[in-house]
Amino acid sequence: MPERREPLLDRARGIRALVLDVDGVLTDAGLYYSARGETIKRFSARDGFAVKLAQSEGIRVAVLSGRVAPPLRVRLRHLGIPAELVIEGSRNKAKDIERLAGVLALPLDQIAFVGDDVPDLPALRLVGLAACPADASEEVRRRCHFVSEARGGNGAVREVVELLLRARGRWDAVIAAWERGEPTFVTHGDHDGDGRSS
Amino acid sequence: MPERREPLLDRARGIRALVLDVDGVLTDAGLYYSARGETIKRFSARDGFAVKLAQSEGIRVAVLSGRVAPPLRVRLRHLGIPAELVIEGSRNKAKDIERLAGVLALPLDQIAFVGDDVPDLPALRLVGLAACPADASEEVRRRCHFVSEARGGNGAVREVVELLLRARGRWDAVIAAWERGEPTFVTHGDHDGDGRSS
Amino acid sequence: MPERREPLLDRARGIRALVLDVDGVLTDAGLYYSARGETIKRFSARDGFAVKLAQSEGIRVAVLSGRVAPPLRVRLRHLGIPAELVIEGSRNKAKDIERLAGVLALPLDQIAFVGDDVPDLPALRLVGLAACPADASEEVRRRCHFVSEARGGNGAVREVVELLLRARGRWDAVIAAWERGEPTFVTHGDHDGDGRSS
Amino acid sequence: MPERREPLLDRARGIRALVLDVDGVLTDAGLYYSARGETIKRFSARDGFAVKLAQSEGIRVAVLSGRVAPPLRVRLRHLGIPAELVIEGSRNKAKDIERLAGVLALPLDQIAFVGDDVPDLPALRLVGLAACPADASEEVRRRCHFVSEARGGNGAVREVVELLLRARGRWDAVIAAWERGEPTFVTHGDHDGDGRSS
Repeated sequence: MPERREPLLDRARGIRALVLDVDGVLTDAGLYYSARGETIKRFSARDGFAVKLAQSEGIRVAVLSGRVAPPLRVRLRHLGIPAELVIEGSRNKAKDIERLAGVLALPLDQIAFVGDDVPDLPALRLVGLAACPADASEEVRRRCHFVSEARGGNGAVREVVELLLRARGRWDAVIAAWERGEPTFVTHGDHDGDGRSS
Repeated sequence: MPERREPLLDRARGIRALVLDVDGVLTDAGLYYSARGETIKRFSARDGFAVKLAQSEGIRVAVLSGRVAPPLRVRLRHLGIPAELVIEGSRNKAKDIERLAGVLALPLDQIAFVGDDVPDLPALRLVGLAACPADASEEVRRRCHFVSEARGGNGAVREVVELLLRARGRWDAVIAAWERGEPTFVTHGDHDGDGRSS
Repeated sequence: MPERREPLLDRARGIRALVLDVDGVLTDAGLYYSARGETIKRFSARDGFAVKLAQSEGIRVAVLSGRVAPPLRVRLRHLGIPAELVIEGSRNKAKDIERLAGVLALPLDQIAFVGDDVPDLPALRLVGLAACPADASEEVRRRCHFVSEARGGNGAVREVVELLLRARGRWDAVIAAWERGEPTFVTHGDHDGDGRSS
Repeated sequence: MPERREPLLDRARGIRALVLDVDGVLTDAGLYYSARGETIKRFSARDGFAVKLAQSEGIRVAVLSGRVAPPLRVRLRHLGIPAELVIEGSRNKAKDIERLAGVLALPLDQIAFVGDDVPDLPALRLVGLAACPADASEEVRRRCHFVSEARGGNGAVREVVELLLRARGRWDAVIAAWERGEPTFVTHGDHDGDGRSS
């Protein structure tokens, strides 16, 4: 059940890694098919900035998806998420989030997971902070500590990152640095880089 | 006319097959054209999970579309819908839903059909359960037993599947199994598989 | 200024041809660019059905666009709109709607035009029925006789077709025929055909 | 903080160039990836018309983006924005907007900038008029003089152009000219041209 602000911030304070489902979280759950299969995925530039911001503040970002799609790999490379922190084609998200925790060398209660649908439930139960977008399925929404105001693929991940950085007392300082023209990470431009820079 | 909850559940209880229109039901009615014709279709990952859930509970899923589009065939293969349960380019949906009933060896009153526009009306009249998305045309909405809250291509099919499984008293058990980390079907990951797994 | 229902139906009764702008009317004004230019356009299946319905009731449908885009031509072929009723790359819509009226051999007051932005204003002033989608620019909305409830690319054209057929007293009969399983035109399936059928 | 109407018009009156961020401003922040990277971008036809209108009224239009994407270049060529007024892959928007001001030979207080996210903040602080779309991040919205009612990629730029032309007392005259069938610029059709005309 979604938590009130104070216990939620307490919970977010201990999080050291953020694991993201893809369809419905980094996207709006839309699958764009051509005659060759799923050839296009739509991501959000604002989520991309947030992912890089999280990484620059020492929060590791990983991906756990039940599907396999070539466009995803390019996007994750642009976001600087290393291959060892990406599981595609997962058939058991509980087992696979434990595998990711092993790679990260972190206990599950220091991990946040963002999911949107029923197959994400067992992983959401295991982690320290369970989050989902506004348009997640009802079963997921009622089991998450945090439900973003934004929908999947349209800023949901950004809200989770903001929550983590606010819990650490870093959000205002980071924004102020950017505003002064002192970016808090260097391989970044407007949003989340491009083919040349990552 | 949309039915109240109890008679609707009675009606849904007897359904053994689910027939889906494509444009406006599995999609938001958007047709993405390139210079070579309709080359992209946008589906929903959450609808895909629901289709597989229905199949795993013994509900057969078929497709009845007036159009012919190569992206659809790939998607249906990923969803595990066999070719004999797919009619594309239909010119008469009443006749063709009867043909599908024959292939399914089911009477029409054990079939649910989800449509969104005027050409779907005669098939909607014939079946045991007539359903449509929130944004179906008004003529269709007022003739359906069930109008989903979600729009086409954005979870409408999922709501129909949930209705069918609730009517069978299976929904809560299925969700609970997934939540315990015991998926109720095996060829599934996050959502609805991919080129490798289906 | 949008008209009340009765004078609007009077006005619509005399219309014998429907001229459509493309971007913002048959689409949501979204221009999908690849490195080769505008390579994808998104149309609506429900608008497509409406265009074919209008044609089958003797209303001729034409297109007047300021842009030139290869995806449009394929779509118009699928919709059965003949080349002589299509003007692309228009630089002066007042002059070009007069040209279309000449080809149609109809006075301008028997023509309806659907536009969405400032360049459409002079053509909207000339025709018998001026219409626009809900999300047309304010300058256009306040000069149209009819503003649809639907947005461009999402059913706006369908509402205009319904208005024209209601004005002729044909809408209910047409819907009833479809519902009885007697389609009022034959080269149609679910929505608006495909490469094989048009 | 968003300004009331009168001081805002005063501020807009002195603007002689309009600099636009891309993702979230000229688009809805959606990044469409294929296996080859970001291969599609979605722009707005109504924004395109507005950009050409601004140019025809003597307002120079430039682009400042943190990303590099081939589809953008084609779009900017269609919009008639010359290469010397385009900075892609910006890593420091404060420095780069000063560079653009140098190329434009204008002081920063005669420049308007439209941005949507944190990396845009330092440039927004420097210019005479800071603007953003309705769905910009909250940090940006509260630091802008003008927040459009439209969302990015769906008319936000058009609203800024209207503001600039209203401040100059030109909007009504321009609309009236178009309505009389006297376009105020010639290389324009419905919206913003195409491969042939720009």
